[in-house]
Amino acid sequence: MMTKSDIPTPALVVDLPTMERNIRLMSDYFASRACKLRPHFKAHKTPEIARRQIAAGSCTGLTCATIGEAEVAATVSNDILIANEIVDADKCRRAAALAQKVGVTVAIDSVAGLEQLSRAATEAGVTLGVLVDLNVGQNRCGVAPGEEAVALGKRARTMPGLKLRGVMGYEGHAVGIHHRAEREAAVRRSMNQLSSTAKMFAEAGLPTELVSGGGTGSYDISSEVERINEIQAGSYALMDSDYGSLDTPFQQALFVLGTVVSRPVPERCVIDAGHKACTKDHGNPSVKGMKDATVLALNDEHAIIAIPPASQVRVGDRLALVPSHIDPTMNLHDVVYALDGDNVVGVWPIAARGYGRG
Amino acid sequence: MMTKSDIPTPALVVDLPTMERNIRLMSDYFASRACKLRPHFKAHKTPEIARRQIAAGSCTGLTCATIGEAEVAATVSNDILIANEIVDADKCRRAAALAQKVGVTVAIDSVAGLEQLSRAATEAGVTLGVLVDLNVGQNRCGVAPGEEAVALGKRARTMPGLKLRGVMGYEGHAVGIHHRAEREAAVRRSMNQLSSTAKMFAEAGLPTELVSGGGTGSYDISSEVERINEIQAGSYALMDSDYGSLDTPFQQALFVLGTVVSRPVPERCVIDAGHKACTKDHGNPSVKGMKDATVLALNDEHAIIAIPPASQVRVGDRLALVPSHIDPTMNLHDVVYALDGDNVVGVWPIAARGYGRG
Repeated sequence: MMTKSDIPTPALVVDLPTMERNIRLMSDYFASRACKLRPHFKAHKTPEIARRQIAAGSCTGLTCATIGEAEVAATVSNDILIANEIVDADKCRRAAALAQKVGVTVAIDSVAGLEQLSRAATEAGVTLGVLVDLNVGQNRCGVAPGEEAVALGKRARTMPGLKLRGVMGYEGHAVGIHHRAEREAAVRRSMNQLSSTAKMFAEAGLPTELVSGGGTGSYDISSEVERINEIQAGSYALMDSDYGSLDTPFQQALFVLGTVVSRPVPERCVIDAGHKACTKDHGNPSVKGMKDATVLALNDEHAIIAIPPASQVRVGDRLALVPSHIDPTMNLHDVVYALDGDNVVGVWPIAARGYGRG
Repeated sequence: MMTKSDIPTPALVVDLPTMERNIRLMSDYFASRACKLRPHFKAHKTPEIARRQIAAGSCTGLTCATIGEAEVAATVSNDILIANEIVDADKCRRAAALAQKVGVTVAIDSVAGLEQLSRAATEAGVTLGVLVDLNVGQNRCGVAPGEEAVALGKRARTMPGLKLRGVMGYEGHAVGIHHRAEREAAVRRSMNQLSSTAKMFAEAGLPTELVSGGGTGSYDISSEVERINEIQAGSYALMDSDYGSLDTPFQQALFVLGTVVSRPVPERCVIDAGHKACTKDHGNPSVKGMKDATVLALNDEHAIIAIPPASQVRVGDRLALVPSHIDPTMNLHDVVYALDGDNVVGVWPIAARGYGRG
């Protein structure tokens, strides 16, 4: 059997028992609640992981960030939310084609986007669900909560081929706040905007079948807000050092394995995993199991690591990095090696990585 | 014929006439010099581009960062330098296998690395070239210039299956210094260490057939230093905003094309190219042809761009980003679209991206 030491580096490895515990903890949390979980596929892009998330229960379907992810996620779930705007003719056609096989709902924040989706759905003879996307403080996409959202919802209802299903809003600016009370306050401010807009939808006779938001840093805050009935958390299954520094019950399951290629001086070693194997957009990774080691720099193909001069690390040894941000790190690799102890029990395609599928 | 507007976004596009001009400028610079060019394949990982670099002349071969890149680069050149340490048995075997087809030289900075390469070369019945890698100030890999390097060179000469060819050193900490006089001084300090170690090699009877260093920010400084006979520049063909801010004659040829998916307020638009399409490790990209636009943030799938409220940008429009760092941005994509004006004249595989080949 292939073992950890046979894996060519740099490589992604997942500790399977830890991942399964994370998935179980999250599905248990939602099991007894009215609010359910719609795991975000963008976190890992890996059908084998999504299958386990859905099998654990408490899930309504999957959340995706792109049409390419949705096409892959549809092999695992028949209820797909693209929690992102899709506005060009080619991607709208792909969304409509996908809707011939599974339920597809897309976030919208413009009339131009509605028109493209409506045209594609009509031409394909399908119905595409739409959710009005709210800016709840992240200042990215999304219309203003309240009247502006209601107006767009009313417009959506007039468009052939589309079925308005409700509203969504992602509190991305708040999910990573370290201090629990501050995070709770910021998340509630955002989610109250989502909730009050859902109330206005209901009062205007617009559907609120889906009121969707939340992430791994806010799942147990947002899910308690009235009317919110879906949480889009993704990172909880694998985790990263950024989310790991919060007070969640989930443990680190994903690592980037590298080989020490150089120890030119006692106080420094270099491994063959750089930022083309492990992104640093949320900061440098840490080194698994070595509290006295610090990543000084991630270059393209090198992690430069400060170590105590007395360390026994030698050229040829293997070290594991703990990524600071899971989503773009997964995106760099074609496969992830599933480990049970030191045994490789699966080599899973990260089937929705990249843009080959758009 | 496919045109720019048919390209699915996000996507890499190269302006072919600009790239060809860059390649011509660099080969002309080296045409009349004793020092030659060994283009760094890691910058673009694209055989179609390497072919044009070599066809332009003044090249000794190609430089690579990994064995996976070397395997692809060997389809274009028969003289490959892996300017990086390779220490594990599997990668050393692959290097030896490659040496049955083309000339392969590998950087070394440890006895453990020498032993692995020697074993693999002996078992495969080939000769692998080696260069002693010097730390000339970047503080990454590499032994100290001077006596330590000479001692490792002498050791290399005793190892079966290996042929010592000289020394290398990369002044990566100096190539990006903006102020020309400061850059020149820092590059010369590094390259004088490389040159003086080459002199010691010669005095000790060790070969100095290859004395290799330099980059796009230092090609016209390092190539003037005595004994240095190869420059490893890579970025000059495509360029990025980081190198573009220096005083080189090369022009930006590579862009990341995106579609405006949202313009929720007059002062902001969002395109579908985030840091999974355009890295930000050297800073946020700029927006091509829009001096009054500023990228506020690159999220996974979104660039959030501040624009003047009076801007005519609309949902569905296309914008192009100028990457700040070319190498990892190329690594995110499977293909690059070659443009002559608005016509797509090639869809080139970035054949050595990722780690599928190690």
